[in-house]
Amino acid sequence: MKMVDVGDKPKTERVAVAAGAVRMSAAALRVLRTGRAEKGDVLAAARIAGIMAAKRTPELIPLCHPVALSSVEVTLTLRRAHVEVRAEVKTVDRTGVEMEALAAVSAASLTVYDMLKSVDRTMVIDAVQLVHKRGGRSGDYTRA
Amino acid sequence: MKMVDVGDKPKTERVAVAAGAVRMSAAALRVLRTGRAEKGDVLAAARIAGIMAAKRTPELIPLCHPVALSSVEVTLTLRRAHVEVRAEVKTVDRTGVEMEALAAVSAASLTVYDMLKSVDRTMVIDAVQLVHKRGGRSGDYTRA
Amino acid sequence: MKMVDVGDKPKTERVAVAAGAVRMSAAALRVLRTGRAEKGDVLAAARIAGIMAAKRTPELIPLCHPVALSSVEVTLTLRRAHVEVRAEVKTVDRTGVEMEALAAVSAASLTVYDMLKSVDRTMVIDAVQLVHKRGGRSGDYTRA
Amino acid sequence: MKMVDVGDKPKTERVAVAAGAVRMSAAALRVLRTGRAEKGDVLAAARIAGIMAAKRTPELIPLCHPVALSSVEVTLTLRRAHVEVRAEVKTVDRTGVEMEALAAVSAASLTVYDMLKSVDRTMVIDAVQLVHKRGGRSGDYTRA
Amino acid sequence: MKMVDVGDKPKTERVAVAAGAVRMSAAALRVLRTGRAEKGDVLAAARIAGIMAAKRTPELIPLCHPVALSSVEVTLTLRRAHVEVRAEVKTVDRTGVEMEALAAVSAASLTVYDMLKSVDRTMVIDAVQLVHKRGGRSGDYTRA
Amino acid sequence: MKMVDVGDKPKTERVAVAAGAVRMSAAALRVLRTGRAEKGDVLAAARIAGIMAAKRTPELIPLCHPVALSSVEVTLTLRRAHVEVRAEVKTVDRTGVEMEALAAVSAASLTVYDMLKSVDRTMVIDAVQLVHKRGGRSGDYTRA
Repeated sequence: MKMVDVGDKPKTERVAVAAGAVRMSAAALRVLRTGRAEKGDVLAAARIAGIMAAKRTPELIPLCHPVALSSVEVTLTLRRAHVEVRAEVKTVDRTGVEMEALAAVSAASLTVYDMLKSVDRTMVIDAVQLVHKRGGRSGDYTRA
Repeated sequence: MKMVDVGDKPKTERVAVAAGAVRMSAAALRVLRTGRAEKGDVLAAARIAGIMAAKRTPELIPLCHPVALSSVEVTLTLRRAHVEVRAEVKTVDRTGVEMEALAAVSAASLTVYDMLKSVDRTMVIDAVQLVHKRGGRSGDYTRA
Repeated sequence: MKMVDVGDKPKTERVAVAAGAVRMSAAALRVLRTGRAEKGDVLAAARIAGIMAAKRTPELIPLCHPVALSSVEVTLTLRRAHVEVRAEVKTVDRTGVEMEALAAVSAASLTVYDMLKSVDRTMVIDAVQLVHKRGGRSGDYTRA
Repeated sequence: MKMVDVGDKPKTERVAVAAGAVRMSAAALRVLRTGRAEKGDVLAAARIAGIMAAKRTPELIPLCHPVALSSVEVTLTLRRAHVEVRAEVKTVDRTGVEMEALAAVSAASLTVYDMLKSVDRTMVIDAVQLVHKRGGRSGDYTRA
Repeated sequence: MKMVDVGDKPKTERVAVAAGAVRMSAAALRVLRTGRAEKGDVLAAARIAGIMAAKRTPELIPLCHPVALSSVEVTLTLRRAHVEVRAEVKTVDRTGVEMEALAAVSAASLTVYDMLKSVDRTMVIDAVQLVHKRGGRSGDYTRA
Repeated sequence: MKMVDVGDKPKTERVAVAAGAVRMSAAALRVLRTGRAEKGDVLAAARIAGIMAAKRTPELIPLCHPVALSSVEVTLTLRRAHVEVRAEVKTVDRTGVEMEALAAVSAASLTVYDMLKSVDRTMVIDAVQLVHKRGGRSGDYTRA
């Protein structure tokens, strides 16, 4: 088990975008739309949880390097039968920020679940994936 | 925004089981099966990440209560085109452990992603959901 | 240096309310009122930061005991020349939650500062104090 | 909600000094002066709590960037009716350390409160503010 | 891998005492004795580090249960060629606090090392062990 | 008390290697060798705990600087009457990583203890020390 050596890699600008979906009942989406969740502002809580999780990724994922994040943005968009969660993370560092973007999406999605579970406990977090990355030795990538 | 008051609820035994899937390429599954991931033992790292995330759930999910966990078990099973991740969490406390089980599944899945992403960056974390809960005022639940 | 022994004290219901004020310029208050802070929703971020800090009080204050919080509520109210920050914390445990309430007020106040400092860096956090406590051996207290 | 992008800003030396006051009764100050607090060395605990909080600022303040701190110093000075708390934080990074200095002052002040609250629970944390900053795009600043 | 189930065990009073030694040069011990370490008060910093580590044991040791600590005390005693570090931890809970006591000793010892390493980098942390435990199903134990 | 200023030091490559030993009974070593510990894979858990502790060193040791780790490797080797624990940590930063390597060894050793304590509670963690360091103003060092 080891955290692989990135000491020889140059510090370059790197971006990662990840996305996911929280599928939910019409009733849960209605609560979201009308802002009437018992615990408060679901979308604000989810965005903040996502941003804070991005910063703590190396504490959650055993072999992740600590990275100097230069920006994190988490957006949630209400769709017909789900909330779309999206995170964009940037750094100027020796290693990429895919895990930070995925961790932000996961934490934001879990927060949506937590704040609406009294309405709908059958919600499903789906399609958590890397959408795009730029920078770094392994090259750019955009999901087909 | 508030962490709802659970002070009047009795301490009772509560169990939650959550599950999820990390869908991946045949090549990534082969690396898993043969234990040849560059970063080391993927399944052990994922199990530990899941257990540790369960314990830190209230730090990740803004309105979660701190809960005295009495057990956490995370299992990963290799399937045809995915790794099945499953977490069972127990407590004797005033509130349930659904979020702890879901957080464990998420962190274990992200760890699988992290340790295999050099082989397959198209992996998708899917179907993260509550499978079963027992105990507490809202009653038992088993996913259909 | 020691974390004093509370093992002999009974678990009883305890409440603490703390308050504080973030004094700021008219310009900063206007940004708050109109919800136009560059970094986003100041009040939501401050409330969440306060709640999360309450949960992490024993990590911040060296000799604080870990306490099983049963509820945390943080409210921010816009006044003429300041934002009033108030936190109410409850537990059923062997020791009080004054520090949790004060930590919540401090973190919420710092977050207000952080999100408005590009508008007004002269803001002052003032009058952080215990307003009320109930339960526990030392008896009830309400600030005069 | 977003952690604003600092990736284009150059790494420069930055300093921030913050201060605050813990106002307390003559009895509490006497306990401090004579070093007879039941919980132990108040000033040492407060200094350490301040330094450790500076390092954890991005975990406490939702939209703060992680910053590579190059030094932190926390000093406490006994005055006639209060303890003066002061923190100086330095970095060579893309963003300033005002929040780190303010967080250090807040945590040190809360620790003073915690260690003396059995003597005086009416203590007030006051005048937590930025005293000075140097470096960075927004220029230098010294409180009037 | 699993955090074993302690949900059926009764909550009982439990105590654990651990000890260790930081062996060092005469020069390093002299700096300690005269309180002239460049970084400040070594013994106060070590005691606080030990107490804080006890509280965070379940975050450090993967399969440790979170435990409601009722007291922690860390003492350091200067001996002829070493500093003796000792931690006593108590709880009223379903599982013991041996790991908390050992973690406190380790963190306090590492802090001594950190604060004196500019004087003596050959210091050795030795004999970290459980000295005594009381309470719990496995019975009492005192090291021979 | 202060975190000393490293802002003027250049960022250079730095390596630290630390080691330690967990002395244990023949019975405990046998459980390790045959992989039959009740809690699961001891060596994997210990390696991960060590790596994760290295990343959190500045949270554990009060005056440690946050450091951008570029690699961490923890190895455990079964000897005749003990497990040898070894950690190598690298960075390209303004300060060394001795404390990170020592913290990794301590956390890995504590994890071995935790996972085998039901078999042998007399285990002793011994000889935790710096083996080698390279880079930085104070020069290279190899333990005699």
